[in-house]
Amino acid sequence: MSKTEELLKKIENNTVKVGIIGLGYVGLPLAVSFARKGINVLGFEKSEKKAQSVNKGRNYIGDVDDAELAHLIQEKVLSATTDFSRISECEAIIICVPTPLDKFKKPDMSYIEGACIDIGRNMKKGTFISLESTTYPTTTEDFMKPIIERESGMKEEEDFWLCFSPERVDPGNKTYKTDNTPKVVGGLGEEAQKIALALYGKAIQKLYPVSSPRAAEMVKILENTYRLVNISLINELALLAGKMQINIWEVIEAAKSKPYGFQAFYPGPGIGGHCIPLDPFYLEYVAKGLNFDLTMIDAAGKINNLQPYRMMNKIAFALNRHKKAMNGSTILFLGVAYKPDIDDPRESPALEVMSLVAHKGAKVLYHDPYIPEVMDEHGHHWQGVELTDEILALADCVVFTTNHSCFDVEYIVEKAQLVVDMRNAVKKVSIEDGKVFKL
Amino acid sequence: MSKTEELLKKIENNTVKVGIIGLGYVGLPLAVSFARKGINVLGFEKSEKKAQSVNKGRNYIGDVDDAELAHLIQEKVLSATTDFSRISECEAIIICVPTPLDKFKKPDMSYIEGACIDIGRNMKKGTFISLESTTYPTTTEDFMKPIIERESGMKEEEDFWLCFSPERVDPGNKTYKTDNTPKVVGGLGEEAQKIALALYGKAIQKLYPVSSPRAAEMVKILENTYRLVNISLINELALLAGKMQINIWEVIEAAKSKPYGFQAFYPGPGIGGHCIPLDPFYLEYVAKGLNFDLTMIDAAGKINNLQPYRMMNKIAFALNRHKKAMNGSTILFLGVAYKPDIDDPRESPALEVMSLVAHKGAKVLYHDPYIPEVMDEHGHHWQGVELTDEILALADCVVFTTNHSCFDVEYIVEKAQLVVDMRNAVKKVSIEDGKVFKL
Repeated sequence: MSKTEELLKKIENNTVKVGIIGLGYVGLPLAVSFARKGINVLGFEKSEKKAQSVNKGRNYIGDVDDAELAHLIQEKVLSATTDFSRISECEAIIICVPTPLDKFKKPDMSYIEGACIDIGRNMKKGTFISLESTTYPTTTEDFMKPIIERESGMKEEEDFWLCFSPERVDPGNKTYKTDNTPKVVGGLGEEAQKIALALYGKAIQKLYPVSSPRAAEMVKILENTYRLVNISLINELALLAGKMQINIWEVIEAAKSKPYGFQAFYPGPGIGGHCIPLDPFYLEYVAKGLNFDLTMIDAAGKINNLQPYRMMNKIAFALNRHKKAMNGSTILFLGVAYKPDIDDPRESPALEVMSLVAHKGAKVLYHDPYIPEVMDEHGHHWQGVELTDEILALADCVVFTTNHSCFDVEYIVEKAQLVVDMRNAVKKVSIEDGKVFKL
Repeated sequence: MSKTEELLKKIENNTVKVGIIGLGYVGLPLAVSFARKGINVLGFEKSEKKAQSVNKGRNYIGDVDDAELAHLIQEKVLSATTDFSRISECEAIIICVPTPLDKFKKPDMSYIEGACIDIGRNMKKGTFISLESTTYPTTTEDFMKPIIERESGMKEEEDFWLCFSPERVDPGNKTYKTDNTPKVVGGLGEEAQKIALALYGKAIQKLYPVSSPRAAEMVKILENTYRLVNISLINELALLAGKMQINIWEVIEAAKSKPYGFQAFYPGPGIGGHCIPLDPFYLEYVAKGLNFDLTMIDAAGKINNLQPYRMMNKIAFALNRHKKAMNGSTILFLGVAYKPDIDDPRESPALEVMSLVAHKGAKVLYHDPYIPEVMDEHGHHWQGVELTDEILALADCVVFTTNHSCFDVEYIVEKAQLVVDMRNAVKKVSIEDGKVFKL
């Protein structure tokens, strides 16, 4: 029996052991998706705290069900470890580590590199390795493969198989979870693809095979570049609309009445989260290496970079209408999560606007029912406040930065002196009615 | 009874007479939509030939049913005239004239201006006037209104009413026609909006009212700017993908498997038709007046302008692989319509590529089953050829510029020496297989 057949058989009869590196918002739901199908999963985590939490059945990811995690731990079908030498126990390894950009918008490949070194040093022959982290096209073939071969002394397609299969996790999405979101799968070579489809098919309802890892890498970048470009476009059009006394929110809703050829995007204080602000710049990085300028991504990036400053100005000129300077005013921000109804402040544009406004001398407060405290990327620690009549009356300006559905908008507007609404939270007012200022 | 009530009553009991200025791909289907509901329609046309054709029941618009037009003419519920003094017979006038851009991408407002002068000089008191032509926001209020007031000596909202309601005609769309595509309606003032909704409600199944003509003007621009920006983005990504040995068509199909947050656009030789290449530049025009740079539209426009040159290069380097120069080669283009299965070559990028290639010394032929001959914007007359074994064998390169569904792709590829496929017409080949070169 060939190594491929051996592994396929193990997958078929659920005796494969799957290692998942990184138990964050991608890795933990994926681990649960495999484990609930009876496949043994070993999670690898650098954070002792997270690994312990998992092993105690304590969930820390919004999209994972607490009881299900506890049950799978109890059944011993899922466990976590900080000991990466145990990679040798697994026949399949899935990498779900972060891929941030550094300050200069250069991809920080250190997490992927670290995972590849751990794998190369510990894996046994006949291991299947799949990367899910968003990255630039060619990463699997040109970055991962040489590291693993160097560290292991083994040969790809002879001793181990490689695959890229991008995560499509949308935190807080009530309809599409890890297991029912179609998954793009790009194995390197025919054998790898066979194994990849068999393995992922165990946990994911629908797979979409593509011809290569680089095609799969490009799919993810295309999806998120599409979003970056369209959000930037609508942010720019919102600015122009404001100058022309046009309510952009009304325009977007009306355009949505077109039954084909249009998808709505909304303006806001900027682009947040773990994907859209980052992914397109992976592509820009690799394009630079080919002396290729991505003018659309470049233009979109510039608009997005300016957006927090424009939002600061919006607040300053709203205060100005009330004959107040920003310096010395108290400004209350509502919502620091990067999107509604989640507890994730990563890359949140609200934090950026708060920093800018504080830098101009304002006293900055924030309230977010999901995020009681938060550290921004400059290392500043913010402590949330309760939303009370007193706080609302005290603030010279209240700013909607996230439209959490639990906000009692009517109450907030009634009690506030002045409102800047960056999320169309206040539906039934004209663009500038004196109290509520909209984008 | 007020003038508004009088007109509303006439609309209600189908005794209103509707004048439609411009019987092109927007005006004629709209005229038919009203007439089939028993409303008397008088079409105004500058072209004697078109007016006569309509009056003889001879249809010249793809989306109009020949028999229905003939029937409505016979029933005398619809007729056409070149006599604009007959505007005085109508209580409602709908303007469906073209709004091209001039060579310097400045809106050519002369057709709208002409229509407004004709209306102002001929209308009676109590006339409702709606503009459907795509144009920059504020046109209805700041451009139309003064001309009509000046020419008529009447006052808007006292003696006549204004409205903007953008056409959403998608030629060749089998599902969405004039009457079942939701229509955005922006009357100027409450009375105008009341009349507009009553009138359009007679012919159109679903109306979407907005607060002002300028909001309605912006809706149409947003819809088409969205398309321009996304087509430009994918054209740029296609170029990069080509450099990275990634099949962009495969990537787009795979991205479509994401069930939310993505809409597919496809690369091609450039952007054609009557809307997308033009409309966003209306907005750019008005933005310039406000000292506002629209960086996304600007970037998209640049990519689109370069696209025909990039396509010329694509052909040149495909020929180069066969050790042939463009100069002296015979190149056969398949399809000059701007999209599949229609007979409209307006702003077709194929014609632009043909011109460029001819300029480099190639012998250029074209075949389009829907367009036997065509004049390009440089005034050059092109005569189509039949698609035969001989022509296919003769051509040094065959180029798919429009993917008409009637093309027998397998046959064409078999008989051709070399194929450049700009439309993913040839599905089952790798990106560069030696004979077929794809974007």
